[in-house]
Amino acid sequence: MIQITRREHFNAAHRLFRSDFSDEQNFEVFGKCSNPNWHGHNYELFVTVKGEINPETGFLINLKTLSNLIERKVLDKLDHKNINLEVDFMVGKLASTENLAVAIWEQLQPEVETLGAQMHCVKLIETENNFAEYYGN
Amino acid sequence: MIQITRREHFNAAHRLFRSDFSDEQNFEVFGKCSNPNWHGHNYELFVTVKGEINPETGFLINLKTLSNLIERKVLDKLDHKNINLEVDFMVGKLASTENLAVAIWEQLQPEVETLGAQMHCVKLIETENNFAEYYGN
Amino acid sequence: MIQITRREHFNAAHRLFRSDFSDEQNFEVFGKCSNPNWHGHNYELFVTVKGEINPETGFLINLKTLSNLIERKVLDKLDHKNINLEVDFMVGKLASTENLAVAIWEQLQPEVETLGAQMHCVKLIETENNFAEYYGN
Amino acid sequence: MIQITRREHFNAAHRLFRSDFSDEQNFEVFGKCSNPNWHGHNYELFVTVKGEINPETGFLINLKTLSNLIERKVLDKLDHKNINLEVDFMVGKLASTENLAVAIWEQLQPEVETLGAQMHCVKLIETENNFAEYYGN
Amino acid sequence: MIQITRREHFNAAHRLFRSDFSDEQNFEVFGKCSNPNWHGHNYELFVTVKGEINPETGFLINLKTLSNLIERKVLDKLDHKNINLEVDFMVGKLASTENLAVAIWEQLQPEVETLGAQMHCVKLIETENNFAEYYGN
Amino acid sequence: MIQITRREHFNAAHRLFRSDFSDEQNFEVFGKCSNPNWHGHNYELFVTVKGEINPETGFLINLKTLSNLIERKVLDKLDHKNINLEVDFMVGKLASTENLAVAIWEQLQPEVETLGAQMHCVKLIETENNFAEYYGN
Repeated sequence: MIQITRREHFNAAHRLFRSDFSDEQNFEVFGKCSNPNWHGHNYELFVTVKGEINPETGFLINLKTLSNLIERKVLDKLDHKNINLEVDFMVGKLASTENLAVAIWEQLQPEVETLGAQMHCVKLIETENNFAEYYGN
Repeated sequence: MIQITRREHFNAAHRLFRSDFSDEQNFEVFGKCSNPNWHGHNYELFVTVKGEINPETGFLINLKTLSNLIERKVLDKLDHKNINLEVDFMVGKLASTENLAVAIWEQLQPEVETLGAQMHCVKLIETENNFAEYYGN
Repeated sequence: MIQITRREHFNAAHRLFRSDFSDEQNFEVFGKCSNPNWHGHNYELFVTVKGEINPETGFLINLKTLSNLIERKVLDKLDHKNINLEVDFMVGKLASTENLAVAIWEQLQPEVETLGAQMHCVKLIETENNFAEYYGN
Repeated sequence: MIQITRREHFNAAHRLFRSDFSDEQNFEVFGKCSNPNWHGHNYELFVTVKGEINPETGFLINLKTLSNLIERKVLDKLDHKNINLEVDFMVGKLASTENLAVAIWEQLQPEVETLGAQMHCVKLIETENNFAEYYGN
Repeated sequence: MIQITRREHFNAAHRLFRSDFSDEQNFEVFGKCSNPNWHGHNYELFVTVKGEINPETGFLINLKTLSNLIERKVLDKLDHKNINLEVDFMVGKLASTENLAVAIWEQLQPEVETLGAQMHCVKLIETENNFAEYYGN
Repeated sequence: MIQITRREHFNAAHRLFRSDFSDEQNFEVFGKCSNPNWHGHNYELFVTVKGEINPETGFLINLKTLSNLIERKVLDKLDHKNINLEVDFMVGKLASTENLAVAIWEQLQPEVETLGAQMHCVKLIETENNFAEYYGN
């Protein structure tokens, strides 16, 4: 059993808020992250998969294949987008790092299994001081 | 003559576009950076000042003072904001890294001189692959 | 179950030594880290907590709250201090990275539980080549 | 139970290929990594060991000792070498990051146990976007 | 006058040696970098150009254009290659960081001028401890 | 004309204070950096030299030679030391980043010239947010 990790990036806008809150309530709970005019981040994404090394190739899976999968299922939907307004798999969810990490896992997990590996971890870095890690429930 | 540098951060949303262009024209020139729903970045800012070391303190200037100045003149206006909509010193300007670096210089330069130092460089990192540096004209 | 991590910093002086050893014995065991005149580090601290996402906020806990807790219980006591001489929770302990990581965990754990989360890991980086991780016993 | 980690480096050349494949087959499976004239990397290696803190020293084990062990068993054999041609413990293996991480673990594990600790993880970073982690089977 | 910088990467094998030297002489001058079986690096390349901001776009030049130019003139020739054996613009030159930085400048300079900017600096990082910078003669 | 840079490290304790000031005055000017019990840093040092490439070697100078020089003249005196108490070339000087950068330049400059190169810059990073650069007067 081995683990391999691919790092990817995306730049996106978001806002933390509840539509059933007033601006004052949103500011009280979410602080300046609730700014109605949006703000944004350079998100750094680490996707870790696990499984057995294929003796034919020396690979768990080809990282090029994993990178293409992340691009198709995650980056094409998130990069240079507004997470609250434009990302189908975030509709109706608070755009927190935690929720985004779980949603990215759910995007990737079924397809990673078809590649002969298992999802191990999604690590999502929002700023150099803050990150979330999700290992499945 | 010595130089000292203070690093600061801000997270902001922006969009590259001209209002006299159609969406298609904007996409042709600015690519996905022209997304009408905005995107954003973790900007990393390096402000370098130069001058003589004060023999009384061993400092060119106190970096705490410089940090407070950057916070008041730059970060309070940019952090968790929409650069196109909310930043007074960017009104009417294209929100490119180049223009933002120059505008930050102009915000800081008069006040740095009152501290007994001279501005040397504003370096503004937009992504880990792209940055601008401005040394005055 | 999700994990979130907050990164913080502190700069401190310390010395590795036993008072029941001669200087020669201390040098033999601890090398130049036993210098009687102290040396110091920029410590980088990662505190990871785990728990369920609160559906009201999208947060496990607010990282601002976690940051304030770390500041009050850890940074205020360690930053710009001498670990051997001035830090109440290190009294009578060898000032190794291992012991410091455990002591920081013990400072934080009771309070993290009152926030509705569980401590997962304290990672303490002493130099870019050396770090300790403590996950509770 | 605590974990400590030592970071080390080595620069090496390698090639991903099977001698029973034609150049075309190798290119199809391994892409440009199969270049017959070799390419290379700055490998970054993190060795994590676990165990109890020795109350006499405050150390799990002395990181200087661990560093010397890694140098003798791993770096002396890999640094500025050709992994496919010159590294005894990689003979007959595909020079993938996964296989190299496992082989480094096998080099270190018996000796770490004689130091009174247990191997926990070998993390091997091949590029800033790709790394493997091995925790023993 | 502003400066913008694009960061790129390539992984390559090389060897420092003179064919008119014996292996012993090469080892004396170039150390383990003269290993006849090659070694390699993850090179990190920063290309800085300077000029005036175009008021129509807010750009000095489009960094996408600069990135494509670097890919065509530099990365396609160096990435996953053997610098001594396969790179046309390094033929007959010692494969040092200094010589490689100068050669990359010469590859890029004529084309950067056709984009309406001037070359300012090529910074080439060979390891995290060693890098060369060339500003033209 | 080319520039090459060598990165080195040292860990040291220091205190910012004037002996002709009271503790209160020192705190007012130097803040928590004046703590009488010391604090410390992981200093990161970049030494940049400039000159012509030697066509016999492809080197400006051998970075191993430069590294050995920095070790002998700078690191042996500063690493794991108390800058205020133990470093001959800092006696009687305020232990600021600015003064330390100038003093390191003065340690290195005469010897770099004997190697056939010229000093260009000493960059000294005290924390990830603060650094000084000295280019000679």
